[in-house]
Amino acid sequence: MNILIVFAHPERHSLNGALLDTAVTELQSQGHEVKVSDLYSMHWKAAVDRSDFPDLPAGERLKVASASSREFAVNGLTEDVKAEQEKLRWADTVILQFPLWWFTMPAILKGWVDRVYACGFAYGVGEHSDRRWGDRYGEGMMAGKRAMLVVTAGGWPEHYSERGINGQIDDLLFPINHGILFYPGFTVLPPFVAYRVDRLDDARFGIVSEQLRERMRTLATTTPIPYRKQNGGDYQIPSMELKPGLETPGAIRFALHVAKPEPS
Amino acid sequence: MNILIVFAHPERHSLNGALLDTAVTELQSQGHEVKVSDLYSMHWKAAVDRSDFPDLPAGERLKVASASSREFAVNGLTEDVKAEQEKLRWADTVILQFPLWWFTMPAILKGWVDRVYACGFAYGVGEHSDRRWGDRYGEGMMAGKRAMLVVTAGGWPEHYSERGINGQIDDLLFPINHGILFYPGFTVLPPFVAYRVDRLDDARFGIVSEQLRERMRTLATTTPIPYRKQNGGDYQIPSMELKPGLETPGAIRFALHVAKPEPS
Repeated sequence: MNILIVFAHPERHSLNGALLDTAVTELQSQGHEVKVSDLYSMHWKAAVDRSDFPDLPAGERLKVASASSREFAVNGLTEDVKAEQEKLRWADTVILQFPLWWFTMPAILKGWVDRVYACGFAYGVGEHSDRRWGDRYGEGMMAGKRAMLVVTAGGWPEHYSERGINGQIDDLLFPINHGILFYPGFTVLPPFVAYRVDRLDDARFGIVSEQLRERMRTLATTTPIPYRKQNGGDYQIPSMELKPGLETPGAIRFALHVAKPEPS
Repeated sequence: MNILIVFAHPERHSLNGALLDTAVTELQSQGHEVKVSDLYSMHWKAAVDRSDFPDLPAGERLKVASASSREFAVNGLTEDVKAEQEKLRWADTVILQFPLWWFTMPAILKGWVDRVYACGFAYGVGEHSDRRWGDRYGEGMMAGKRAMLVVTAGGWPEHYSERGINGQIDDLLFPINHGILFYPGFTVLPPFVAYRVDRLDDARFGIVSEQLRERMRTLATTTPIPYRKQNGGDYQIPSMELKPGLETPGAIRFALHVAKPEPS
């Protein structure tokens, strides 16, 4: 398989860097081809702005979606963005690896999403009408590819548990797993999350890195999160609300959009 | 009151820009003092990196939390970050205004949080022990200040409703409202969200801007989201899990952390 890892940590000589090495080594030893987009070493530009749309006339107002759509259609986006889009086309599996900062990804990785996910590439794909709301949530350019998150967190697992004060980790990651990965068509695997990483001694690092290796060995066979496809009949169109009675008993809020309980 | 608006849209001549003007004009007409941090016009640097910690020796590994803590303690953070911290100290109310991009804030605003929220300022405040887990979630440097989000979204309200495919808007914004605003001590007001903004005609703009003016007039009197305080007795320490039986009937997941139903 071709595997792309997008890595967003400012210090290569860190736990995150060591886990990246662990993943790459394991994947290569399984015969996979691996590319790493190390956003900090690439000096990735995070903010979407006018310079992303070179053909936008100087006096014209920037409307991000339409400018993005226009440039994407004529292959006119900037070289850094096009290179990442090419890696996404190449990849069979995409891994986003990052430390959890303020309960989501660091700005530099959000900026990778904001810029690489052009209109016509990751959204605004397919027919948009009162009968069909585009190729998204299970369809789209990334259909057939797998994706997963590799996340480190300073807090304890309990703090991210069902009743933990930070909120349940699956819910905190829902906007990424469902909104950023499932949206353009990826099949989304359960995330790998390492907790209490500020105080990880050698023994626990050994355990965590072995758990990560196991996830790398099972990328192709791990059961994905069974998010409901938008155009699979479960949602009313165009309101895009889940049809009555389809929910798993007891499921409310984000859990409505999962067809059956997530594999544990 | 002193009011800080942190504004994150790349085009000042946009709906977001017009709503910013609406808010500022209304607030000033009420006699408030207003400062705007227009992140794009400030060319805000989004990514946390070594250059944020000028005293870090060249060969030393960057550990963000400890470097941040050390520089904050000696007033050694960069001037742009210190200026924003000063505005936060000055403000009685803070508004974050942004377009919803991929179900959260744009990278440039996430980078404002990542950089301005230094260790010792927005986290790592107060006693951390087995008896007390810091001054956070209702306590901290922002205690006594109010905060709210002003958000624009391209999708329909139904898509963000209780059963909408994007996920319920309150849950999508929970990591920001609870994890970024309530965490360092802000009292958090319900967000202002404008939907279907890609096709907002003059009539609807008039309605939306009047709704926003009304929210600006009632900043001091709007009932906040009643998030549970970490150190108010509702959570077990140090597991930080909600004690059994305290939940509002039927509440699960993020809703556990709200003491009673949010005001509608």
